[in-house]
Amino acid sequence: MSDHVSIRDERMHTRLKELAKVGALPERGVRRLAMTPEDKAGRDFVRALFEAAGLTVTVDAIGNMFGLTPGRENEPHVLTGSHVDTVATGGPYDGAYGVIGGLEAVQSIIESGAETARPLGVAVFTNEEGVRFYPDMMGSRVFTGDMPLEDALASTDAEGLRLGEALESTGYRGDVEPGSIPVQAFVELHVEQGPVLHTESLSIGAVQGVQGLYWTEYELTGATNHAGTTPMDLRRDALLGAAEAIVFARRLCEEVSGDQRATVGALRIEPSLVNVIAETAIFTTDLRNADLALLQRAQKMMDEEVRVICERHGLEHSSRDIGRVDPIVFDVDIVRLVENTARSMGLPCRRMISGAGHDAQLMAARHPAAMIFVPSRGGVSHSVHEHTDADDLTAGVRVLAQVLAELAGA
Amino acid sequence: MSDHVSIRDERMHTRLKELAKVGALPERGVRRLAMTPEDKAGRDFVRALFEAAGLTVTVDAIGNMFGLTPGRENEPHVLTGSHVDTVATGGPYDGAYGVIGGLEAVQSIIESGAETARPLGVAVFTNEEGVRFYPDMMGSRVFTGDMPLEDALASTDAEGLRLGEALESTGYRGDVEPGSIPVQAFVELHVEQGPVLHTESLSIGAVQGVQGLYWTEYELTGATNHAGTTPMDLRRDALLGAAEAIVFARRLCEEVSGDQRATVGALRIEPSLVNVIAETAIFTTDLRNADLALLQRAQKMMDEEVRVICERHGLEHSSRDIGRVDPIVFDVDIVRLVENTARSMGLPCRRMISGAGHDAQLMAARHPAAMIFVPSRGGVSHSVHEHTDADDLTAGVRVLAQVLAELAGA
Repeated sequence: MSDHVSIRDERMHTRLKELAKVGALPERGVRRLAMTPEDKAGRDFVRALFEAAGLTVTVDAIGNMFGLTPGRENEPHVLTGSHVDTVATGGPYDGAYGVIGGLEAVQSIIESGAETARPLGVAVFTNEEGVRFYPDMMGSRVFTGDMPLEDALASTDAEGLRLGEALESTGYRGDVEPGSIPVQAFVELHVEQGPVLHTESLSIGAVQGVQGLYWTEYELTGATNHAGTTPMDLRRDALLGAAEAIVFARRLCEEVSGDQRATVGALRIEPSLVNVIAETAIFTTDLRNADLALLQRAQKMMDEEVRVICERHGLEHSSRDIGRVDPIVFDVDIVRLVENTARSMGLPCRRMISGAGHDAQLMAARHPAAMIFVPSRGGVSHSVHEHTDADDLTAGVRVLAQVLAELAGA
Repeated sequence: MSDHVSIRDERMHTRLKELAKVGALPERGVRRLAMTPEDKAGRDFVRALFEAAGLTVTVDAIGNMFGLTPGRENEPHVLTGSHVDTVATGGPYDGAYGVIGGLEAVQSIIESGAETARPLGVAVFTNEEGVRFYPDMMGSRVFTGDMPLEDALASTDAEGLRLGEALESTGYRGDVEPGSIPVQAFVELHVEQGPVLHTESLSIGAVQGVQGLYWTEYELTGATNHAGTTPMDLRRDALLGAAEAIVFARRLCEEVSGDQRATVGALRIEPSLVNVIAETAIFTTDLRNADLALLQRAQKMMDEEVRVICERHGLEHSSRDIGRVDPIVFDVDIVRLVENTARSMGLPCRRMISGAGHDAQLMAARHPAAMIFVPSRGGVSHSVHEHTDADDLTAGVRVLAQVLAELAGA
């Protein structure tokens, strides 16, 4: 297919390996916590690449860095990009792939000599992981107006250092107003961080949206009693109630359509003794769905089932919301473009939903946006064992380059 | 019914109140841990009552104290009795009722002037609760040869003090060989420590046996993973496996006949985080049944179900026995005698199984034995809130006195 943008995949792999050396952990893996010297070194490496590629580097007041097609700053950009910061024991691709792969795509378009109707750019968002400073995806939150700049700058790390100070000390507190760069569209390239593509032996995921997430904590209270002398029909066993709720949570996923996910990850009981009926059970539910109506329906079903279970076993119960994030739906035209582009290249592809949060979901609230996923081996993520095959890394960048070129009107 | 033994119930209630003052806790409840000064004071109180009733007091080498019909030490005795020691926050009747009520029954028979073919006696067994020295029911274990005397004397408390030393210091290390007192039959009077009689508004339980008890710890191991990105069908959720096992344990009680009981009382999971699938779940089962074959069947069903659950969810699992006590069956003739006696007095009665352990279960291995239960309000036991109505206390002693008289051939 000669009309596809040609990329220089060896250059991209070499750059990824170089960036993985910045903040490398002794055995394997990477640590570049936001706005530490390692993160700064990673950004400096990327900045140099931007400049070498002929891009104009711009840094805004929250530290977001952009490499932009020069001379067209005030026109709407077709942007790609991701983040350079990592979790404490991260892998080489989470974030870095979207930046280095994004640069490769943009640089390849430029090198192809094609004139684009709209300018291009690569974004490096600040503190995507949210490990050192809370909350996560902070750079894109501020960029899109989801979070006030002052609040973000006032966020402190465990030692009490403010993000604003950390930005100053690393030299990444820019003077451009966040969000002032005009955006035509945003496409983020990322490793899946889940097992779907790897399990199904696919190369490309056309990401339609990001799951919404509802977290709830339930507390069930029964009566502690002797396991030997208390007849079964006189028991008020809080753990039995919790167990039935946990089993229901799994069934819920089958009853609600739309790839509903439900996890009871945390549970503790009192008194937790072999021969004593549990008096209290406190557990959480983590419900996720890309469809808001279905997610709300799942939450309602879970609440109702807990109520029925507690009534059946004579338990009291209370619950509280501990997290509510509504789903994000990406731009259908870009999703279709990603899918069609992958197919035109003969790359096995599926539409899918992201289970993890990304900068693209903030961008989607303001601009046409979507994501391209490549496989994560075994779905392993936020781990030094994170891995994606080189061929898949190459495939993702090829698709991205073509998508950006078309969005930019090459 | 003029041919029943008349008891002096006011005397018995007064004595119970007096004994409850020994080791009384500030608000309510009693603490007489085995062979502490409080336990000694309780025994001294009982010893004085034995002597005042004209009984010969005998103490054996493990501290078991007996008040026996005088002059007939070498003939087989019809014994009753229980224990004076309590748990750390006990009530006034657990143990004490069997001793004071037992004395009232024996003393009433003597005072009735009836000549008995066999001598009578009241036992106070050492360290029934097993709170300070391990194991529980120690006095009756040694008396019946279930545990060597030397092992019992070598048992140490939390401060490292040997039971043998504690017996010396309280003056309750006797020189009579444990088990040397000949026993014709043993009948123990006790509060139920469960809710059955209270719930069914019955006065007397004719105890047919003591539940066997099988304790098992299961460890399920799956894979920890991201609650958002991991599709439901690719999960290996250890908590879901545990929850299904907990739900099954309750169903097991319906499938196995014979008052099967099953409790999952202890459970802990790792890592126990809202958005992370649990990697391990460790939980215990406490299975109880009065029928050995049914108990063994229940254990087998539980083991098999855990295996099937783990296979279904791709979990590894291991299990270990952490307790195995086979059921005890009491003497059918004595059980029938208790039941018929209660009926002849117009006292509402049922046959039942003890869910808790008692000295009578050790005695049953060597001698014809049974128990008489009276209601515990709300089933509350091993608690300062333990309570039995005075009328029920009286009823139990009336039945006991008549049963002892008949067993002794009055």
